[in-house]
Amino acid sequence: MANGYNNKILRVDLSGGTISVDEPEENFYRRYLGGRGLVGYYLNKEMKGDEDPLGPENKLIFATGPITGLSIAGAGRNSVGARSPLTGGYGDGEVGGYWGAELKHAGYDAIIIEGKAEKPVYLWIEDGKVEIKAAGHIWGKKTAECEKIIKKELGDNGIRVAQIGIAGENQVRFACVINDISHAAGRSGLGAVMGSKNLRAIAVRGHGKVAVADEEGVEALLKQSREELKANLGNIGMAQSGTAGILMLLNTAGGLPTRNFQQGAFEGAEKISADALNETILVRRRGCFACPIQCKPEVATGEPYNVDPTYGGPEYEALGSFGSNCGIDDLPAISKAAELSNACGLDVISTGVSIAFAMDCFERGILTEKDTGGLKLNFGNAEAMVKLVEMIARKEGLGKVLAEGVARAAEAIGNGAEECAMHANKQEIPMHSPRFRPGMGVGYAVSVTGADHVHNMWDNAYTQNTGRLKDMGVLEPLPREELSPAKVRLLIYGHLWPHIQNCLTFCGFAPMSVDRMIELLKAVTGWNINLFELNKIGERCITMARAFNVRAGRTKKDDRLPHRFFTPFESGPLAGAKLDEAEFEQAVGTYYAMMGWDEEGKPTPAKLQELGVGWVAGV
Amino acid sequence: MANGYNNKILRVDLSGGTISVDEPEENFYRRYLGGRGLVGYYLNKEMKGDEDPLGPENKLIFATGPITGLSIAGAGRNSVGARSPLTGGYGDGEVGGYWGAELKHAGYDAIIIEGKAEKPVYLWIEDGKVEIKAAGHIWGKKTAECEKIIKKELGDNGIRVAQIGIAGENQVRFACVINDISHAAGRSGLGAVMGSKNLRAIAVRGHGKVAVADEEGVEALLKQSREELKANLGNIGMAQSGTAGILMLLNTAGGLPTRNFQQGAFEGAEKISADALNETILVRRRGCFACPIQCKPEVATGEPYNVDPTYGGPEYEALGSFGSNCGIDDLPAISKAAELSNACGLDVISTGVSIAFAMDCFERGILTEKDTGGLKLNFGNAEAMVKLVEMIARKEGLGKVLAEGVARAAEAIGNGAEECAMHANKQEIPMHSPRFRPGMGVGYAVSVTGADHVHNMWDNAYTQNTGRLKDMGVLEPLPREELSPAKVRLLIYGHLWPHIQNCLTFCGFAPMSVDRMIELLKAVTGWNINLFELNKIGERCITMARAFNVRAGRTKKDDRLPHRFFTPFESGPLAGAKLDEAEFEQAVGTYYAMMGWDEEGKPTPAKLQELGVGWVAGV
Repeated sequence: MANGYNNKILRVDLSGGTISVDEPEENFYRRYLGGRGLVGYYLNKEMKGDEDPLGPENKLIFATGPITGLSIAGAGRNSVGARSPLTGGYGDGEVGGYWGAELKHAGYDAIIIEGKAEKPVYLWIEDGKVEIKAAGHIWGKKTAECEKIIKKELGDNGIRVAQIGIAGENQVRFACVINDISHAAGRSGLGAVMGSKNLRAIAVRGHGKVAVADEEGVEALLKQSREELKANLGNIGMAQSGTAGILMLLNTAGGLPTRNFQQGAFEGAEKISADALNETILVRRRGCFACPIQCKPEVATGEPYNVDPTYGGPEYEALGSFGSNCGIDDLPAISKAAELSNACGLDVISTGVSIAFAMDCFERGILTEKDTGGLKLNFGNAEAMVKLVEMIARKEGLGKVLAEGVARAAEAIGNGAEECAMHANKQEIPMHSPRFRPGMGVGYAVSVTGADHVHNMWDNAYTQNTGRLKDMGVLEPLPREELSPAKVRLLIYGHLWPHIQNCLTFCGFAPMSVDRMIELLKAVTGWNINLFELNKIGERCITMARAFNVRAGRTKKDDRLPHRFFTPFESGPLAGAKLDEAEFEQAVGTYYAMMGWDEEGKPTPAKLQELGVGWVAGV
Repeated sequence: MANGYNNKILRVDLSGGTISVDEPEENFYRRYLGGRGLVGYYLNKEMKGDEDPLGPENKLIFATGPITGLSIAGAGRNSVGARSPLTGGYGDGEVGGYWGAELKHAGYDAIIIEGKAEKPVYLWIEDGKVEIKAAGHIWGKKTAECEKIIKKELGDNGIRVAQIGIAGENQVRFACVINDISHAAGRSGLGAVMGSKNLRAIAVRGHGKVAVADEEGVEALLKQSREELKANLGNIGMAQSGTAGILMLLNTAGGLPTRNFQQGAFEGAEKISADALNETILVRRRGCFACPIQCKPEVATGEPYNVDPTYGGPEYEALGSFGSNCGIDDLPAISKAAELSNACGLDVISTGVSIAFAMDCFERGILTEKDTGGLKLNFGNAEAMVKLVEMIARKEGLGKVLAEGVARAAEAIGNGAEECAMHANKQEIPMHSPRFRPGMGVGYAVSVTGADHVHNMWDNAYTQNTGRLKDMGVLEPLPREELSPAKVRLLIYGHLWPHIQNCLTFCGFAPMSVDRMIELLKAVTGWNINLFELNKIGERCITMARAFNVRAGRTKKDDRLPHRFFTPFESGPLAGAKLDEAEFEQAVGTYYAMMGWDEEGKPTPAKLQELGVGWVAGV
C-alpha cells in the first residue's frame, strides 16, 4: 500500500509486557483516516465505556494520519486518546512538535497502550523495533530533565519524547501528555491515564520514509506550498505573535474571559498582550516539524520567577487562563505558571480555570484561608496563583482538591461552590466567552470531549460568507450574537473540518486551503477523495465519539453550561449580554437533530449506518 | 451576474393574460441551482399543497440550469414541474431534445405558468419577448402537426416547441409534455396540468449567449470534453443501442418485467431487443442539442402499423412496458404504441403498465369483453394493445378508466383489481423489477414523484466499489439482493447525483465525470463549488419535494409497493426471489431516518434548517 500509511499499528500490553502489530486493510484507513478517527474506532471497538479511566482496562492511543511526517508545515502532529478521567467520556487531545512525524518515520501509524506496568516504564521505539524499559530513575523528574536523561541513555540526540510530568504520575485529572517538552496534548486528562499505566514516556526515533501513491505529485505540491508559505511569511500574524495576537481583539470586543468569566474585558489586558510579551520577555520563537511559522514563544525572566525558556512560553490560552481570568496582569508570573505546566505536565486551561475557580470561591467566602493553607486567593494574587500550579501538580493541600477539576472540586467543597465551577461536561472552559460567542457556548456544551474551543471556532460572523463555509453552501452571514438553528448549522458545518484536520493530525493554523489539502490527499493516498467523503469522515469521527460518550453514560442533562453565562455581563463592551436559556436549550436539541442523534443525544442506528459504521450501534 | 444564468424567471398568468419577470439574487441560484431545485422551491413557496392539480391554482414550471445551453453533450434538457394529478404530490419530469437550450438562449432560466386561459392558447417566446397566442387551430392535432403549424405561422423553422398532445388536452392523468416531437417529460402527468390550463404549447426561439464567469476556462473544458467524446464515441453503447441495450441483460438476469411484473424473463425478449430493433426497423439514430451520441432511435414499419419515423422510436422503457410487460414480442406494434404515445402526449411507462394492468385483470376475469368493448385483452394481443393506447389518449371506453392511472382504475373496477395495479404512490412502476433489485423497490416506494427509476438506479452491486459511490466513501460492495440499512445508504448516496443532474438539467447518460462537472460548474458560475455543496443541493431538492408531498397529504402508509413483489417469482432465472415484508418496512423507516425525516417521512425542522431552507418548515 503506497498510500501514506505504514500499515502498522503497534499494540503494547504493559501488564503482560507483550508487543504486537496490527496490519489493517486499506479501507480501514480510508474510513477512519487517522488521529481522532482511530481513537474513536478503538474506544468503541475495544472498550465498553464503563472501564475505570485510571484502571488498566483503559486504552491509551497515540495516532497519526496519512500526511503526518511529510515535509510540510502542519504535518508534525498526533492525537492522543483514551476514556477521559476528567469527563468520564471520549477523551482526546492533539499535539504538535516533532514526535508525531518521528513515530510515522519509525514505521507506525498509531500505538495502542493497554494494561498497566508493575513499575514505572518508558517505551522505546526505533525504526520498528520496540522495547519496554525501566523508568524508575526518571519518575518524578521535570519533563526537560526526563527527556535529557532518555536521550543520553539511548545515545541519540535526535530522539523525540512524548511523556507525562509529575502531574500525570500523580493522576491529576487534567494532566496532559507533553511532546518535545513544550507541546501539549492538553485536554481530557490523558496524562493521568498514562500515569495510571506507569508509563512515563514514549521515546521514538525513525529514519523511514512513508510511501505515497504519486511521489512526484506529492513532491510538487509540497514544494509549491513551501514556496508560497516562504513568500508569504511576513504577512502571517501567527509568525509575529502566535495565538496571543487574539487577546487584545477579544478584550476590545468584550470577549476576554476575566476573573473566572465574570467579565469580558480586563483592565490589565495590555500588560499581558502579544505586544507586551514580544517587547519584554520573548527570547525567540520556535515551531514544529517542517514549519517555518514558528508561532510558539520562548520566554525568559529574572527574579522573582526566573522563567526557564526551555519550556517555551505562554500562548493565548495560558495568557487568558493564568492572566485575565485570574485577574492577573503580571506577565512573568503567568509565564512561570506556563513553565510549571509544561514541566509538570498540566493542561494550562484546566489549571488556570481551576485556580480562577478557587479565587472566585475565596472572594465569596466559600473558601477561606483555612482551606487554602494561608494563601490569600484574591483575584490578582500572582504569587498565590503560581504556588497553586505546583500544589495541583503535587496534589498538595488545596491543590489536591483542585486536581480533580472544578466540577468535582465544587462538589467536594459544597457551600455554593458550583456557581463558580466553569466547566462543560466536567472539562474546564477555554478562553472564549460564551456570552460573546453563543454559538461557541453551544459547542462547549455538546462537544464530545467536554468544553473545547478548537473544534467550535467557526460559529461566528467573522468567518461567514467567505472561505470554506461559503464553499459548503452557507451563503448568508449571521450576526455574532444570534443563537438560531442557522447558527447551529454553522457550528456543525464549521466543526467538520477541524475534526478532519485532527484525523489527518494536521495543524489548524498551517496555511493550507481545503482545496490544496484535497489535492495533496489524493496524491498521497491515491484515493479520489473529495470534500463530501472528508466531511463524512468528520461527521463519523464526531458521531463515534458521541456514541462512546453515550455508552459511558452521557445524556442531554450533561450538555449544559454554567449558570453564569445565562446572566448578563454587568459591565464592559458587552454589558447586558447573556445567553438565553430557551434559545440555548433549543440549540442543543437542534444540534442533536441536525447530527442525526435522538433527543438524548444518542446517535441513531440509522445515522451510524449512514456513516458506514453501523457496527457501533451494536457494540 | 456572469454565472451561467440569465437572472430572469418568466411568470405568465394565463387567467389574466399578464406577463412578468422575476430577477432573483445570486444566492437563490446557488441554493436551488435550477431544474428540480426550482420546481421544489416554487411549489413550496407559492402553493399550499391542497390545490386541485387540474385547477387554475396549480403552477406549472419549466426550468433550466446553469450549464443548460452550453455547447456540450447533455446540456439541452429542462425540468417540468407542478402538483401532479397522478400522485397528488410533487410532480416533476425531465426531458431532453433542444427546447431547454433554446429557452436559455432566449433569455430565461425558467417559466412559471399560473392560472388558466379561457380558450386554447400557446406561448411564443423570442429573445425575451413574450406573447400569448390563440391555439384553437392546433387543439386536437398530433404533436408533429402542431409543431409544423406553429413553425409555419411564426415563420421560423428554428423554433423549438414544448407541447402537449390530445392526451394532455383530455387531461389523461399520465399525459406528458413533449419537446421537439419525440422527447418526453414523461412522468407525473404534467401534460394534463398543461391541458387543464388550456396551454397547448410553448414555442421558443433564442439567439442569446449566456454569460459565464470564466469564458476561456469554460471553452477549454467544453473543447476537451467534446474531443474526448468524439474519440471515444465508438465505445459508447448508448450510441449503438440507446437504452434498449439493457433489455437482454435484464432478461438473462431475470429482471425484465414480464406480463404485468408476474415474471422476470420473457420468452420473446430477443424479438424486442436492441439487436432486433437495429436490424429490422431502425431508420437512423437521433439525439439532442449538442450531443453526438445520438442514442434515440427513429424507426419505420410498413403494414399493418405504418410507424412514422417522425416520432422517433421505442427506447427501453417502451420496449418493456408495451412489450414484455404486455407479453408482446411484436416490435412494429410496440413501435406503433410508442409513436402514438409521442403523437398524443402519453407517458409510455404509465400507458404500457395501465394496459398490462387491464390485460392482467382480463386474464383473471376481473374485466370481461363487456368492459373492454369487445377487445380480447389477453397478454400478447398486440393489436388490442395498440388500440388501447389511442383509447386512453381519447378517453374512450375502457381507455377512460385507464386514463386515470392503475390506482384509480383499480378502485373504479373493484373486484380485486388492486392486485393487478402496479404502482407506487399512484404512479405506474417502470421497467426494473423490485424482485430483481430490492433497493430500487425501496426507491420506488419512497421516491418523491411516485415510482421512479431514474433517481434510484444506484442501489445495486454493479456500481459499487468503483466510481462515484466509492468517491463518496461507500467502500465495500453489497450483494444485489441484499436489503439492509447499508443498501439504503447506497440508495441515498446514489440518488443525490441524479437529483443534482436534474437541477443542472444535465443528461444522466452524457459521459461527464463528477470531477469534470465540478470543474465546469466552477468555471461557469465562478463559485468555488464542490461535491459537498452539490450533494447538499441534491439532498435539499429531495427534501423540499418530500416537504411538499407531506403538505399534500403523503404519509408512511403511502410509501409501499404492490403485494405482488412480496410473493416469489414462480419461474425464470430468479425463481423464488421476492421482497421480504419486514426488511422492506425497515428499509423505508431507515430511509426516512437517514434522510432526517420523522417516522411518517416528514422532514424535521432541524433537517430543513440544516439544509438552509428552514422557511419550508414554516409555510
